[in-house]
Amino acid sequence: MSILIKNVEVISPESSAGNGTSVLSEENTNIHIVGDRIVAIGKDDYPEADTIIDGTNLVALPGLVNAHTHAFMTLFRGMGDDLPLDEWLNNRIWPAEAKLTAEDVYWGVKLSLVEMIKSGTTAFADMYFFMEEAVKAVEEAGIRASLSIGMTPFDKDYEEILKESKDFVSRWNGAASGRILTMYGPHAPYTCPPEFLKAVALEAERDGVGIHIHLAETSKEVEDMKEKYGRTPVELAAEAGLFNVHTLAAHCVHLTQQDIKLLAEGGVFVAHNPQSNLKLGSGVAPVPQMLAEGIPVALGTDGAASNNNLDLLEEMRTAALLHKGVNMNPTLMPADDALRMAILNGAQALGFRDTGCLKVGNKADLILMDFRRAHLTPLWDTLSHIVYSSSAFDIKTMIVDGRLIMDKGEILTLDEEEVYFEINRRFKRFEDK
Amino acid sequence: MSILIKNVEVISPESSAGNGTSVLSEENTNIHIVGDRIVAIGKDDYPEADTIIDGTNLVALPGLVNAHTHAFMTLFRGMGDDLPLDEWLNNRIWPAEAKLTAEDVYWGVKLSLVEMIKSGTTAFADMYFFMEEAVKAVEEAGIRASLSIGMTPFDKDYEEILKESKDFVSRWNGAASGRILTMYGPHAPYTCPPEFLKAVALEAERDGVGIHIHLAETSKEVEDMKEKYGRTPVELAAEAGLFNVHTLAAHCVHLTQQDIKLLAEGGVFVAHNPQSNLKLGSGVAPVPQMLAEGIPVALGTDGAASNNNLDLLEEMRTAALLHKGVNMNPTLMPADDALRMAILNGAQALGFRDTGCLKVGNKADLILMDFRRAHLTPLWDTLSHIVYSSSAFDIKTMIVDGRLIMDKGEILTLDEEEVYFEINRRFKRFEDK
Repeated sequence: MSILIKNVEVISPESSAGNGTSVLSEENTNIHIVGDRIVAIGKDDYPEADTIIDGTNLVALPGLVNAHTHAFMTLFRGMGDDLPLDEWLNNRIWPAEAKLTAEDVYWGVKLSLVEMIKSGTTAFADMYFFMEEAVKAVEEAGIRASLSIGMTPFDKDYEEILKESKDFVSRWNGAASGRILTMYGPHAPYTCPPEFLKAVALEAERDGVGIHIHLAETSKEVEDMKEKYGRTPVELAAEAGLFNVHTLAAHCVHLTQQDIKLLAEGGVFVAHNPQSNLKLGSGVAPVPQMLAEGIPVALGTDGAASNNNLDLLEEMRTAALLHKGVNMNPTLMPADDALRMAILNGAQALGFRDTGCLKVGNKADLILMDFRRAHLTPLWDTLSHIVYSSSAFDIKTMIVDGRLIMDKGEILTLDEEEVYFEINRRFKRFEDK
Repeated sequence: MSILIKNVEVISPESSAGNGTSVLSEENTNIHIVGDRIVAIGKDDYPEADTIIDGTNLVALPGLVNAHTHAFMTLFRGMGDDLPLDEWLNNRIWPAEAKLTAEDVYWGVKLSLVEMIKSGTTAFADMYFFMEEAVKAVEEAGIRASLSIGMTPFDKDYEEILKESKDFVSRWNGAASGRILTMYGPHAPYTCPPEFLKAVALEAERDGVGIHIHLAETSKEVEDMKEKYGRTPVELAAEAGLFNVHTLAAHCVHLTQQDIKLLAEGGVFVAHNPQSNLKLGSGVAPVPQMLAEGIPVALGTDGAASNNNLDLLEEMRTAALLHKGVNMNPTLMPADDALRMAILNGAQALGFRDTGCLKVGNKADLILMDFRRAHLTPLWDTLSHIVYSSSAFDIKTMIVDGRLIMDKGEILTLDEEEVYFEINRRFKRFEDK
C-alpha cells in the first residue's frame, strides 16, 4: 500500500530543534508513503503510488496529539455546566459514572474517536475504566492511543487494583501493530496514598511502561496534600519514584518553584489542559515558565464533560493566547511553540517514537488542511493561520500508520451514524432524577 | 417574500429578562417570516411561504453581533504575530496602512464579510478609514453594520476631520433600508485631546447618533493619560460628555472602581475583545464585575490582524472560559450570560432595535446551526453546546432582514471566488521590504 500526496505545503515541528524551536515549512512538496512510513518528502519526480492525493491548496502537518483526556466522557458533554466543582462531581458526574456499563464506555469512546478524527487528532492519552473497551474502539478507528486504567484505591485492596492494571498493561502494550501503548494510571496523589504510588512506580519500571497521573490541578488539592503530608502533589510524586520512569502529568496548574525544578529534573512530560482548567475555575498553569525550564509541555483537552469538546486546534489557540494575556506579554508562546506542544511534545509524552514530525523514516501520521477558506486568506503566514485562525473543519484528510482514516471529511474506519444512534439511545439513562 | 422554517429548535436571549438572564428554548417550533419581520413563532399549523426550510436537527438562534472590529484588516491577517506591540504597530501595521487605497479597503471588507457570514455574524460595528467602501460592501452583502470613521486628529485640523465624519454620519445613517447605521468614531483619548472629544460628543448629540471609541485597552494608555491629564481614559471620556450620548467603548481592560461606576451610570455599552486583548498582551477585562454592575457588555473580535479571525462563536467561548479561570470560579459567566453578550447586548450596542432576539415583530435576523455533529452529541443541553462546543462550520444558513444570505453553507449575496482572487492579487503589495 502506498500513498503519494502531490504538490502540498508541509508544516511540521522539527525533531532536531534542541533548545530552540524550529518549524519545517516547504511549499510545492511531494510526500511519498509506503506501508506505514514516510519514504520521501521533496520536489523529486513522482513515483508510483496506489493512491494519489492532489495537494493543491492543502497544507500537510503531523496529526495533532491529545495528551490528556477521558475519551468516554463525550457521553456526559454538557451534562452539568457552570456549577461549583463539588456540586458538579458529587451531584452529576459521579452518580452518572456509577451507572456505566462496559458497552456505554465502548460507544462513548467511539463518539470521541469520531470527534477526534474529524478535528485532526491522530493520537491521544486516555485514563478511565473499562479500558478494554477503549482498546477495541481504538483498534477499529485506526488511530493511536496510550491507554491507562485510572486507579483510585480508596478503600480497595491495593494489590488487586495493581494486578488489574498490570494485566492490562502487559496484555495490550504494543497492540494494534504498535498503535496502542499502555501506561499505569494512578489517578492523583490525593486519591492514591504514597505507598501505593511507590508500588506503581516499581511496577512501571519493571514493565518498561510509563505513568499517567493528575498533578496539582486545583489549589485545594495542593493545600490538602500539604496539610496531610507536608508535601505538594509534585513532591509526593517525586518521592514515590514516579519521576524515575516516563511520567505524563496532567494539569500542573499550581506549582512552586521547587515543583518546577523537580518536574524539569525528572524529565516529566506535562499535559496542559487550558480550557478545562479555565472552565472548572482551576486557574492558569505557568506554562511559559515550564517551557523555559525545558519541561516538554504537551496539550490535552481533558474529558468532554469539562471542555466541552475534543478540538485540539482550539486548545492550541487557547494556550497560545492565554499565556500572552495573563502575563501581559505578546511575545510569549509564539506560534512555533504552540505547534510543538500540540504535536511533537504530545507524541513524545505518549511514548510514540517516529511520530510527531514529518520526515523520512517516520510513521506516516498526518492530516491535510484545506486552505481555500476566508479565515485562512490571504496567506501571509501558514503557521500563523494554523495556530491563530484555522478550525477543525479545515481538516479534510487523515492518514495514520500509512492508512487513510478520513478522506474529504468522511471517516473511513467508523460508522458515524451507528455511533450517533447508539449514543442517542443510551445517554438519557444518565439523567439526573 | 416569505420564509417558513419548520420543526426547528429555537434558542434566543429574551429581551424582557431585566436584571436576571433568561434564554428562550423551544423544540419543534415553526418560524414564519414575512418581508423583513418574524410574524409567528410557535407550533401552529404551517402557513403558506415562498421558501420552506426543514428545521430537523437544526437550531435557530439570532445572528451573532461583532461589536468591535476593523473589518478591512483581514487583509493583514497573520502579517506580524508574536511581536512586541510597538514593533508590530510601527514596523508592520502602520507602514502597511500607509499604502492602502480605497479599493484595498473595499476588498478587505468584502473578505471580512465572507468570513463573518460563514461564521454567523449578522451585524458588526466597524471603525476604520475609507468607510464609504464599507458602506458599498455591506449594502451588497446584505447584513447589518454600524459604521464609523476612525478619527485621529494628531496634527490635523479638528474641524476638517469632524466635518468628514459629520458628512459620513448624515449621509449613510439608515442606508440600505436601515441595515446601515453610523456613529462618530473618535479613536481613543490618547489620540483625541479632550476638546476634540467634547466637540464630537456635541455633534453626536445633535445628529442623534452614537459614538464608537477605544477605552483603556492597555495599562500604558491608562498611565500615560493619568500622567498627561491626571485622569483615566474613562474619566476623560465621561468629562468630555461622551456618556451623555449612546457610547460603545471597546476594550475597557484596565479600569478603576470609579471607571466602572462611570460606565454603569453613563449607560455605556462595552465591547469586550478577549482574544485580541490576550494576543496583544493587553490583559483581561473585569467583565464579571462590569456585568454585575449592570453594564451591557457585548463581544468583539477586534481586527483580524490581532485575533486572527472574525469568529464570534470562538470569542464567546473564550469569554465564557477565561473569566471562570482567571477568577478561579466556575460559576462566573454562565452560558446564558455569554449568549446574551454575543447577541442581544451586541445588537443594542450597535443601535439596532428589533434585533438580537427571536420574537414576533422583530426583524428576521437569524442563523441555523446543524446539530448532527459528533461534537454536539449527545444533546444534553443545546445552549451549553452552542456556547462550549459548537463551531462556525455548524452554521449552515443565515437570514438577515428576512432575506436568505447563506443557504447550506453557500453565500448567496457575494462571489466568494472573486473576493479571494482580488485579495490574493493585492496583499503582496503590503509586504515588509
